[in-house]
Amino acid sequence: MVEFTIESLDSADVERLRGIFGPLTESVRDLIDATIRTEVDADVVAVAKAEIDAATARLRSRQLDGAFGVRLSEGGQMPWGNPVIGLRNPVAPPLVLHRAPDGGKYADFHLGAAYEGPPGHVHGGMSALILDHVLGEAASSADHPRLTGTISMRYLRTTPLGDLHVEARIVRSEGIKTYAVGHLSDASGVTVEAEGVFISPKWAR
Amino acid sequence: MVEFTIESLDSADVERLRGIFGPLTESVRDLIDATIRTEVDADVVAVAKAEIDAATARLRSRQLDGAFGVRLSEGGQMPWGNPVIGLRNPVAPPLVLHRAPDGGKYADFHLGAAYEGPPGHVHGGMSALILDHVLGEAASSADHPRLTGTISMRYLRTTPLGDLHVEARIVRSEGIKTYAVGHLSDASGVTVEAEGVFISPKWAR
Repeated sequence: MVEFTIESLDSADVERLRGIFGPLTESVRDLIDATIRTEVDADVVAVAKAEIDAATARLRSRQLDGAFGVRLSEGGQMPWGNPVIGLRNPVAPPLVLHRAPDGGKYADFHLGAAYEGPPGHVHGGMSALILDHVLGEAASSADHPRLTGTISMRYLRTTPLGDLHVEARIVRSEGIKTYAVGHLSDASGVTVEAEGVFISPKWAR
Repeated sequence: MVEFTIESLDSADVERLRGIFGPLTESVRDLIDATIRTEVDADVVAVAKAEIDAATARLRSRQLDGAFGVRLSEGGQMPWGNPVIGLRNPVAPPLVLHRAPDGGKYADFHLGAAYEGPPGHVHGGMSALILDHVLGEAASSADHPRLTGTISMRYLRTTPLGDLHVEARIVRSEGIKTYAVGHLSDASGVTVEAEGVFISPKWAR
């Protein structure tokens, strides 16, 4: 059962929460990068680990029972736990999606050490995660969420870590099916192409 | 250019590093979950953020210039920065892959709040990230890495957060192409099917 949580938050409340939890999440993203790249000795790691564990205990002193879910407030949707765009999810790069003039979606973003597969390059599955999300967003609207039915990726070459661009758009709709295409690119052009069929879930029809 | 780093580490060195950096990474994974789920007030968040920033500065006092890469040591491969299996990557669940009797690969693992898409369920793109990785591992061997050429996912139903299983195997090989299939499942059966073509990169032929 997929349940959305309705919160009695207005736009000002949402902005206040964004101001509290956005910087915390950015700090954890920075820590993730440092954890992968550090070369300090065991005694320094031990001190850092104690600081991290103290912060975790503090944050857990009051917390949600389960995952974050998707909150719907008067200030709009709050998919803050999402691993691609989530304001409160340190795993997310995060992508900030924009609407293109043709109705599609796009984002410019940066991927660092946490997203590496082949040395110096983006993990192919990370490209798939991002394309799945952006094609899904292009296929959906605020009142018509659509979930991935099938999706295919074609890797033209390896994608370097660094500054990247992703975009997606609807090509056609037939009943409950919406067909979308998109691609990931670096400054030299397209690296991965994607096409998928997105379905209106029963609970949203 | 994809470059692997050769380290003069023996098995004992690798075990020593695992003992230092494995627990640090686990602590950061725990912090990621707490960051998403916490409901503490702004003043408590501020104290936790200061502890996290102190830990990050400590870890960055000596660090690699770039991403982790894939290290090759006498103790075997060290893909420790990998976002699916990396011992040193807090973004990775991580998966611990095993070899099946038929030569395929499989893993049993748990996905929590950091991997949520639809409320209470795994982000479809996270399933794609994991399947891409495991099909790629099934298609590769220690001395013959293979990268994704094309991959397709078919979503049979939404995958609940919690305990999951993934497996993949080669179905056939033709020249530089290796065809692999696999699936993700929960206790009730298969949730996502995948099939892909994996290619020997020029630098590894």
